[in-house]
Amino acid sequence: MSTGQGLFLSFEGIDGSGKSTQARRLAEALRAQGLEVVLTREPGGSPGAEEIRALVLNGDPDRWSAETEILLFTAARRDHLERTIRPALARGAVVICDRFADSTRVYQGISRGDLRATVDSLHALMIGREPDITLLIDMDPEEGLSRALGRAGTDTRFEGFGSDLQKAMRKGFLDLAAAHERFRVIDGKGDIDTVFTRLSAALPEFFKAPA
Amino acid sequence: MSTGQGLFLSFEGIDGSGKSTQARRLAEALRAQGLEVVLTREPGGSPGAEEIRALVLNGDPDRWSAETEILLFTAARRDHLERTIRPALARGAVVICDRFADSTRVYQGISRGDLRATVDSLHALMIGREPDITLLIDMDPEEGLSRALGRAGTDTRFEGFGSDLQKAMRKGFLDLAAAHERFRVIDGKGDIDTVFTRLSAALPEFFKAPA
Repeated sequence: MSTGQGLFLSFEGIDGSGKSTQARRLAEALRAQGLEVVLTREPGGSPGAEEIRALVLNGDPDRWSAETEILLFTAARRDHLERTIRPALARGAVVICDRFADSTRVYQGISRGDLRATVDSLHALMIGREPDITLLIDMDPEEGLSRALGRAGTDTRFEGFGSDLQKAMRKGFLDLAAAHERFRVIDGKGDIDTVFTRLSAALPEFFKAPA
Repeated sequence: MSTGQGLFLSFEGIDGSGKSTQARRLAEALRAQGLEVVLTREPGGSPGAEEIRALVLNGDPDRWSAETEILLFTAARRDHLERTIRPALARGAVVICDRFADSTRVYQGISRGDLRATVDSLHALMIGREPDITLLIDMDPEEGLSRALGRAGTDTRFEGFGSDLQKAMRKGFLDLAAAHERFRVIDGKGDIDTVFTRLSAALPEFFKAPA
Protein backbone atom coordinates (compact mmCIF):
# COMPACT_ATOMS: atom_id res chain seq x y z
CA MET A 1 0.00 0.00 0.00
CA SER A 2 2.79 2.44 0.85
CA THR A 3 4.76 3.95 -2.00
CA GLY A 4 7.53 5.00 0.44
CA GLN A 5 8.95 2.86 3.23
CA GLY A 6 6.68 4.44 5.85
CA LEU A 7 2.94 5.02 5.66
CA PHE A 8 1.30 8.34 4.82
CA LEU A 9 -2.13 8.94 6.39
CA SER A 10 -4.22 12.09 5.99
CA PHE A 11 -7.27 13.27 7.89
CA GLU A 12 -9.93 15.27 6.09
CA GLY A 13 -13.30 16.72 7.00
CA ILE A 14 -15.18 19.99 7.46
CA ASP A 15 -14.30 22.45 10.23
CA GLY A 16 -15.51 21.14 13.55
CA SER A 17 -15.65 17.52 12.37
CA GLY A 18 -13.22 16.50 15.11
CA LYS A 19 -10.54 15.33 12.65
CA SER A 20 -7.69 17.14 14.44
CA THR A 21 -8.64 15.54 17.75
CA GLN A 22 -8.83 12.11 16.11
CA ALA A 23 -5.48 12.65 14.36
CA ARG A 24 -3.82 13.40 17.73
CA ARG A 25 -5.54 10.42 19.32
CA LEU A 26 -4.35 8.12 16.55
CA ALA A 27 -0.78 9.45 16.85
CA GLU A 28 -0.81 8.65 20.59
CA ALA A 29 -2.18 5.16 20.01
CA LEU A 30 0.43 4.33 17.36
CA ARG A 31 3.27 5.73 19.48
CA ALA A 32 2.04 3.49 22.30
CA GLN A 33 2.60 0.60 19.85
CA GLY A 34 6.23 1.71 19.52
CA LEU A 35 5.90 3.23 16.06
CA GLU A 36 7.60 6.46 15.06
CA VAL A 37 4.78 8.88 14.25
CA VAL A 38 5.13 12.32 12.69
CA LEU A 39 1.93 14.30 13.33
CA THR A 40 1.72 17.28 11.03
CA ARG A 41 -0.85 19.58 9.45
CA GLU A 42 -1.66 21.69 6.42
CA PRO A 43 -1.39 24.42 5.51
CA GLY A 44 1.94 24.42 7.35
CA GLY A 45 3.89 21.46 8.68
CA SER A 46 7.43 22.75 8.05
CA PRO A 47 9.03 26.05 9.09
CA GLY A 48 8.78 27.54 5.58
CA ALA A 49 5.25 26.27 5.04
CA GLU A 50 4.16 27.72 8.39
CA GLU A 51 5.36 31.14 7.22
CA ILE A 52 3.37 30.76 4.00
CA ARG A 53 0.37 29.61 6.07
CA ALA A 54 0.53 32.82 8.11
CA LEU A 55 0.67 34.86 4.90
CA VAL A 56 -2.43 33.12 3.50
CA LEU A 57 -4.64 32.84 6.58
CA ASN A 58 -4.12 36.18 8.32
CA GLY A 59 -5.86 39.34 7.25
CA ASP A 60 -8.70 40.28 4.94
CA PRO A 61 -10.50 37.38 3.16
CA ASP A 62 -10.09 39.33 -0.14
CA ARG A 63 -6.37 39.76 0.37
CA TRP A 64 -5.54 37.10 -2.23
CA SER A 65 -7.47 35.88 -5.23
CA ALA A 66 -8.43 32.22 -5.30
CA GLU A 67 -5.72 31.60 -7.93
CA THR A 68 -2.95 33.24 -5.87
CA GLU A 69 -4.13 31.39 -2.78
CA ILE A 70 -3.94 28.04 -4.59
CA LEU A 71 -0.36 28.84 -5.66
CA LEU A 72 0.61 29.75 -2.10
CA PHE A 73 -0.97 26.60 -0.68
CA THR A 74 0.85 24.54 -3.32
CA ALA A 75 4.17 26.21 -2.43
CA ALA A 76 3.55 25.43 1.25
CA ARG A 77 2.63 21.84 0.38
CA ARG A 78 5.76 21.37 -1.71
CA ASP A 79 7.93 22.60 1.17
CA HIS A 80 6.04 20.43 3.66
CA LEU A 81 6.45 17.37 1.43
CA GLU A 82 10.18 17.97 0.89
CA ARG A 83 11.18 18.95 4.41
CA THR A 84 8.80 16.95 6.65
CA ILE A 85 6.80 14.22 4.92
CA ARG A 86 9.31 12.60 2.53
CA PRO A 87 12.19 12.45 5.06
CA ALA A 88 9.86 10.87 7.65
CA LEU A 89 8.54 8.26 5.20
CA ALA A 90 12.10 7.51 4.06
CA ARG A 91 13.09 6.53 7.60
CA GLY A 92 9.98 4.36 7.95
CA ALA A 93 7.79 6.60 10.09
CA VAL A 94 4.01 6.83 10.02
CA VAL A 95 3.06 10.34 8.86
CA ILE A 96 -0.33 11.58 10.03
CA CYS A 97 -1.30 14.79 8.27
CA ASP A 98 -4.25 16.94 9.36
CA ARG A 99 -5.49 18.00 5.88
CA PHE A 100 -3.60 17.52 2.63
CA ALA A 101 -4.39 18.14 -1.05
CA ASP A 102 -8.00 16.98 -0.75
CA SER A 103 -8.75 20.03 1.39
CA THR A 104 -7.49 22.29 -1.41
CA ARG A 105 -9.55 20.38 -3.94
CA VAL A 106 -12.68 20.78 -1.85
CA TYR A 107 -12.18 24.30 -0.42
CA GLN A 108 -10.88 26.00 -3.54
CA GLY A 109 -12.18 23.64 -6.20
CA ILE A 110 -15.73 23.32 -4.90
CA SER A 111 -16.17 26.92 -3.74
CA ARG A 112 -14.75 28.14 -7.09
CA GLY A 113 -15.87 25.29 -9.36
CA ASP A 114 -14.13 26.74 -12.42
CA LEU A 115 -10.79 26.27 -10.64
CA ARG A 116 -11.09 22.58 -9.93
CA ALA A 117 -9.18 21.55 -13.07
CA THR A 118 -6.48 24.12 -12.23
CA VAL A 119 -6.07 22.67 -8.74
CA ASP A 120 -5.66 19.18 -10.21
CA SER A 121 -3.17 20.33 -12.88
CA LEU A 122 -1.10 22.18 -10.32
CA HIS A 123 -1.07 19.16 -8.03
CA ALA A 124 0.03 16.86 -10.86
CA LEU A 125 2.77 19.30 -11.90
CA MET A 126 4.24 20.28 -8.52
CA ILE A 127 3.18 17.72 -5.87
CA GLY A 128 2.31 14.40 -7.51
CA ARG A 129 1.96 12.50 -4.23
CA GLU A 130 -1.24 11.31 -2.51
CA PRO A 131 -1.60 9.84 0.98
CA ASP A 132 -1.67 6.06 1.20
CA ILE A 133 -4.84 6.24 3.31
CA THR A 134 -7.20 9.20 3.74
CA LEU A 135 -9.49 9.16 6.76
CA LEU A 136 -12.55 11.31 6.16
CA ILE A 137 -14.31 12.21 9.42
CA ASP A 138 -17.82 12.80 8.13
CA MET A 139 -19.95 15.26 10.07
CA ASP A 140 -23.29 17.01 9.74
CA PRO A 141 -22.35 20.63 8.87
CA GLU A 142 -24.72 22.24 11.40
CA GLU A 143 -23.09 20.30 14.19
CA GLY A 144 -19.59 20.89 12.79
CA LEU A 145 -20.10 24.65 12.51
CA SER A 146 -21.32 25.04 16.06
CA ARG A 147 -18.32 23.06 17.27
CA ALA A 148 -15.89 25.15 15.22
CA LEU A 149 -17.35 28.51 16.27
CA GLY A 150 -17.25 27.40 19.87
CA ARG A 151 -13.44 27.09 19.75
CA ALA A 152 -11.54 30.11 21.02
CA GLY A 153 -8.71 31.75 19.13
CA THR A 154 -9.13 29.91 15.86
CA ASP A 155 -7.22 31.66 13.09
CA THR A 156 -8.74 30.26 9.92
CA ARG A 157 -10.84 32.66 7.94
CA PHE A 158 -12.82 29.89 6.25
CA GLU A 159 -14.98 29.30 9.28
CA GLY A 160 -16.68 32.67 8.74
CA PHE A 161 -18.07 31.48 5.45
CA GLY A 162 -21.13 29.87 7.01
CA SER A 163 -22.87 26.58 6.87
CA ASP A 164 -23.98 26.55 3.20
CA LEU A 165 -20.31 26.36 2.26
CA GLN A 166 -19.81 23.67 4.90
CA LYS A 167 -22.63 21.64 3.30
CA ALA A 168 -21.03 21.98 -0.12
CA MET A 169 -17.69 20.97 1.35
CA ARG A 170 -19.13 17.91 3.04
CA LYS A 171 -20.53 16.85 -0.32
CA GLY A 172 -17.15 17.59 -1.94
CA PHE A 173 -15.31 15.34 0.50
CA LEU A 174 -17.89 12.55 0.11
CA ASP A 175 -17.62 12.81 -3.69
CA LEU A 176 -13.83 12.50 -3.49
CA ALA A 177 -14.19 9.53 -1.14
CA ALA A 178 -16.49 7.80 -3.61
CA ALA A 179 -13.95 8.34 -6.40
CA HIS A 180 -10.72 7.23 -4.69
CA GLU A 181 -9.96 3.90 -3.05
CA ARG A 182 -7.54 5.41 -0.56
CA PHE A 183 -10.48 7.00 1.36
CA ARG A 184 -12.07 5.51 4.46
CA VAL A 185 -15.15 7.34 5.71
CA ILE A 186 -15.64 7.52 9.48
CA ASP A 187 -18.91 8.70 11.05
CA GLY A 188 -17.90 11.70 13.20
CA LYS A 189 -21.03 11.75 15.34
CA GLY A 190 -20.71 11.09 19.06
CA ASP A 191 -17.99 11.60 21.66
CA ILE A 192 -14.24 11.27 21.07
CA ASP A 193 -14.02 7.68 22.30
CA THR A 194 -16.95 6.55 20.16
CA VAL A 195 -15.44 8.06 17.02
CA PHE A 196 -11.99 6.69 17.85
CA THR A 197 -13.45 3.19 18.19
CA ARG A 198 -14.83 3.54 14.65
CA LEU A 199 -11.50 4.91 13.43
CA SER A 200 -9.58 1.97 14.91
CA ALA A 201 -11.95 -0.47 13.25
CA ALA A 202 -11.22 1.23 9.91
CA LEU A 203 -7.47 0.71 10.35
CA PRO A 204 -6.86 -3.05 10.52
CA GLU A 205 -3.24 -2.29 9.51
CA PHE A 206 -2.69 -1.11 13.08
CA PHE A 207 -5.56 -2.35 15.26
CA LYS A 208 -6.77 -5.90 15.74
CA ALA A 209 -10.50 -6.40 15.55
CA PRO A 210 -12.06 -6.82 19.03
CA ALA A 211 -12.38 -10.48 19.99
CA MET B 1 0.79 45.11 -30.64
CA SER B 2 -0.94 45.54 -27.29
CA THR B 3 -3.38 42.88 -26.19
CA GLY B 4 -4.85 45.22 -23.53
CA GLN B 5 -5.70 48.88 -24.07
CA GLY B 6 -2.36 50.03 -22.64
CA LEU B 7 1.12 48.78 -23.45
CA PHE B 8 3.07 46.31 -21.31
CA LEU B 9 6.89 46.68 -21.47
CA SER B 10 9.35 44.58 -19.51
CA PHE B 11 13.06 45.09 -18.89
CA GLU B 12 15.31 42.06 -18.59
CA GLY B 13 19.03 41.50 -18.16
CA ILE B 14 21.64 40.16 -15.74
CA ASP B 15 22.34 41.84 -12.41
CA GLY B 16 24.29 45.05 -12.93
CA SER B 17 23.19 45.42 -16.55
CA GLY B 18 21.68 48.80 -15.77
CA LYS B 19 18.14 47.73 -16.68
CA SER B 20 16.55 49.24 -13.56
CA THR B 21 18.19 52.61 -14.27
CA GLN B 22 17.03 52.48 -17.88
CA ALA B 23 13.49 51.49 -16.82
CA ARG B 24 13.29 54.56 -14.56
CA ARG B 25 14.74 56.76 -17.26
CA LEU B 26 12.17 55.49 -19.78
CA ALA B 27 9.34 56.07 -17.30
CA GLU B 28 10.45 59.69 -16.86
CA ALA B 29 10.70 60.26 -20.61
CA LEU B 30 7.23 58.84 -21.28
CA ARG B 31 5.69 60.83 -18.42
CA ALA B 32 7.25 63.94 -19.96
CA GLN B 33 5.27 63.06 -23.09
CA GLY B 34 2.09 63.17 -20.97
CA LEU B 35 1.55 59.41 -20.81
CA GLU B 36 0.40 57.62 -17.69
CA VAL B 37 3.24 55.27 -16.72
CA VAL B 38 3.18 52.59 -14.05
CA LEU B 39 6.77 51.63 -13.16
CA THR B 40 6.84 48.34 -11.31
CA ARG B 41 9.17 45.42 -10.62
CA GLU B 42 9.34 41.71 -9.98
CA PRO B 43 9.41 39.87 -7.74
CA GLY B 44 7.01 42.26 -6.04
CA GLY B 45 5.01 45.08 -7.58
CA SER B 46 1.86 44.81 -5.44
CA PRO B 47 1.51 44.79 -1.63
CA GLY B 48 0.88 41.04 -1.49
CA ALA B 49 3.63 40.24 -4.00
CA GLU B 50 6.10 42.38 -2.02
CA GLU B 51 5.38 40.25 1.04
CA ILE B 52 6.01 37.09 -0.97
CA ARG B 53 9.20 38.69 -2.36
CA ALA B 54 10.47 39.26 1.18
CA LEU B 55 9.72 35.63 2.04
CA VAL B 56 11.68 34.37 -0.99
CA LEU B 57 14.66 36.70 -1.02
CA ASN B 58 15.54 37.04 2.65
CA GLY B 59 17.50 34.43 4.53
CA ASP B 60 19.52 31.35 3.68
CA PRO B 61 19.88 30.51 -0.06
CA ASP B 62 18.84 26.92 0.77
CA ARG B 63 15.74 28.04 2.58
CA TRP B 64 13.48 27.00 -0.31
CA SER B 65 13.94 24.36 -2.99
CA ALA B 66 13.95 25.53 -6.61
CA GLU B 67 10.45 24.08 -7.04
CA THR B 68 8.99 25.88 -4.01
CA GLU B 69 10.69 29.10 -5.08
CA ILE B 70 9.12 28.86 -8.55
CA LEU B 71 5.69 28.42 -6.95
CA LEU B 72 6.24 31.43 -4.69
CA PHE B 73 7.43 33.60 -7.60
CA THR B 74 4.40 32.50 -9.61
CA ALA B 75 2.06 33.39 -6.73
CA ALA B 76 3.70 36.82 -6.49
CA ARG B 77 3.43 37.28 -10.26
CA ARG B 78 -0.24 36.33 -10.28
CA ASP B 79 -0.97 38.90 -7.54
CA HIS B 80 1.11 41.55 -9.34
CA LEU B 81 -0.72 40.88 -12.60
CA GLU B 82 -4.18 41.03 -10.99
CA ARG B 83 -3.66 43.98 -8.68
CA THR B 84 -1.19 46.22 -10.55
CA ILE B 85 -0.57 45.33 -14.21
CA ARG B 86 -4.04 44.43 -15.53
CA PRO B 87 -5.84 47.41 -13.91
CA ALA B 88 -3.18 49.81 -15.29
CA LEU B 89 -3.42 48.35 -18.81
CA ALA B 90 -7.21 48.48 -18.62
CA ARG B 91 -7.13 52.25 -18.06
CA GLY B 92 -4.68 52.71 -20.94
CA ALA B 93 -1.43 53.19 -19.01
CA VAL B 94 2.04 52.16 -20.13
CA VAL B 95 3.30 49.51 -17.69
CA ILE B 96 7.08 49.26 -17.37
CA CYS B 97 8.08 46.19 -15.40
CA ASP B 98 11.65 45.61 -14.14
CA ARG B 99 11.83 41.81 -14.70
CA PHE B 100 8.89 39.56 -15.53
CA ALA B 101 8.48 35.88 -16.38
CA ASP B 102 11.62 35.77 -18.55
CA SER B 103 13.73 36.26 -15.42
CA THR B 104 12.13 33.18 -13.87
CA ARG B 105 12.71 31.21 -17.07
CA VAL B 106 16.38 32.18 -17.10
CA TYR B 107 17.21 32.15 -13.35
CA GLN B 108 15.34 29.01 -12.38
CA GLY B 109 15.06 27.29 -15.75
CA ILE B 110 18.69 27.74 -16.81
CA SER B 111 20.29 27.24 -13.40
CA ARG B 112 18.14 24.09 -12.90
CA GLY B 113 17.74 23.00 -16.54
CA ASP B 114 15.44 20.09 -15.63
CA LEU B 115 12.90 22.61 -14.34
CA ARG B 116 12.56 24.67 -17.50
CA ALA B 117 9.53 22.73 -18.75
CA THR B 118 7.94 23.06 -15.29
CA VAL B 119 8.43 26.84 -15.34
CA ASP B 120 6.75 27.03 -18.75
CA SER B 121 3.84 24.77 -17.72
CA LEU B 122 3.26 26.78 -14.57
CA HIS B 123 3.31 30.04 -16.53
CA ALA B 124 0.82 28.70 -19.08
CA LEU B 125 -1.47 27.42 -16.30
CA MET B 126 -1.43 30.38 -13.87
CA ILE B 127 -0.15 33.51 -15.68
CA GLY B 128 -0.67 33.20 -19.42
CA ARG B 129 0.32 36.78 -20.22
CA GLU B 130 3.56 38.04 -21.81
CA PRO B 131 4.75 41.64 -22.17
CA ASP B 132 4.03 43.34 -25.49
CA ILE B 133 7.69 44.41 -25.75
CA THR B 134 10.65 43.05 -23.78
CA LEU B 135 13.77 45.22 -23.65
CA LEU B 136 16.85 43.11 -22.96
CA ILE B 137 19.76 45.22 -21.73
CA ASP B 138 22.64 43.04 -22.80
CA MET B 139 25.82 43.28 -20.73
CA ASP B 140 29.14 41.52 -20.42
CA PRO B 141 28.82 39.51 -17.15
CA GLU B 142 32.20 40.57 -15.72
CA GLU B 143 31.23 44.19 -16.03
CA GLY B 144 27.69 43.52 -14.77
CA LEU B 145 28.90 41.66 -11.68
CA SER B 146 31.33 44.37 -10.64
CA ARG B 147 28.52 46.93 -10.99
CA ALA B 148 26.09 44.81 -8.96
CA LEU B 149 28.56 44.09 -6.15
CA GLY B 150 29.40 47.78 -6.00
CA ARG B 151 25.83 48.64 -5.00
CA ALA B 152 25.19 49.02 -1.25
CA GLY B 153 22.32 47.34 0.56
CA THR B 154 21.23 45.04 -2.23
CA ASP B 155 18.92 42.32 -0.93
CA THR B 156 18.93 39.74 -3.68
CA ARG B 157 20.69 36.52 -2.90
CA PHE B 158 21.30 35.68 -6.53
CA GLU B 159 24.17 38.11 -6.79
CA GLY B 160 26.26 35.88 -4.56
CA PHE B 161 26.17 33.11 -7.13
CA GLY B 162 29.13 34.46 -9.08
CA SER B 163 29.94 35.23 -12.63
CA ASP B 164 29.70 31.74 -14.17
CA LEU B 165 25.99 31.80 -13.41
CA GLN B 166 25.82 35.34 -14.81
CA LYS B 167 27.40 34.09 -18.06
CA ALA B 168 24.85 31.28 -18.30
CA MET B 169 22.08 33.76 -17.62
CA ARG B 170 23.28 36.17 -20.29
CA LYS B 171 23.17 33.29 -22.76
CA GLY B 172 19.70 32.33 -21.46
CA PHE B 173 18.35 35.83 -22.07
CA LEU B 174 19.91 36.00 -25.55
CA ASP B 175 18.43 32.58 -26.42
CA LEU B 176 14.98 33.77 -25.35
CA ALA B 177 15.45 36.96 -27.39
CA ALA B 178 16.30 34.91 -30.46
CA ALA B 179 13.16 32.82 -29.99
CA HIS B 180 10.55 35.52 -29.34
CA GLU B 181 9.65 38.49 -31.54
CA ARG B 182 8.65 40.67 -28.59
CA PHE B 183 12.33 41.03 -27.58
CA ARG B 184 14.50 44.02 -28.50
CA VAL B 185 18.15 43.69 -27.49
CA ILE B 186 19.93 46.86 -26.34
CA ASP B 187 23.71 47.01 -25.91
CA GLY B 188 24.19 47.95 -22.22
CA LYS B 189 27.80 49.11 -22.57
CA GLY B 190 28.62 52.76 -21.90
CA ASP B 191 27.14 55.48 -19.70
CA ILE B 192 23.46 55.96 -18.91
CA ASP B 193 22.85 58.53 -21.65
CA THR B 194 24.55 56.41 -24.30
CA VAL B 195 22.44 53.36 -23.43
CA PHE B 196 19.26 55.44 -23.23
CA THR B 197 19.90 56.80 -26.73
CA ARG B 198 20.04 53.21 -27.98
CA LEU B 199 16.90 52.34 -26.01
CA SER B 200 14.98 55.27 -27.51
CA ALA B 201 16.02 54.24 -31.00
CA ALA B 202 14.61 50.76 -30.29
CA LEU B 203 11.22 52.22 -29.34
CA PRO B 204 9.87 54.03 -32.42
CA GLU B 205 6.40 53.68 -30.85
CA PHE B 206 7.40 56.50 -28.49
CA PHE B 207 10.48 58.25 -29.89
CA LYS B 208 10.96 59.83 -33.29
CA ALA B 209 14.19 58.99 -35.03
CA PRO B 210 16.70 61.90 -34.84
CA ALA B 211 16.48 64.15 -37.89
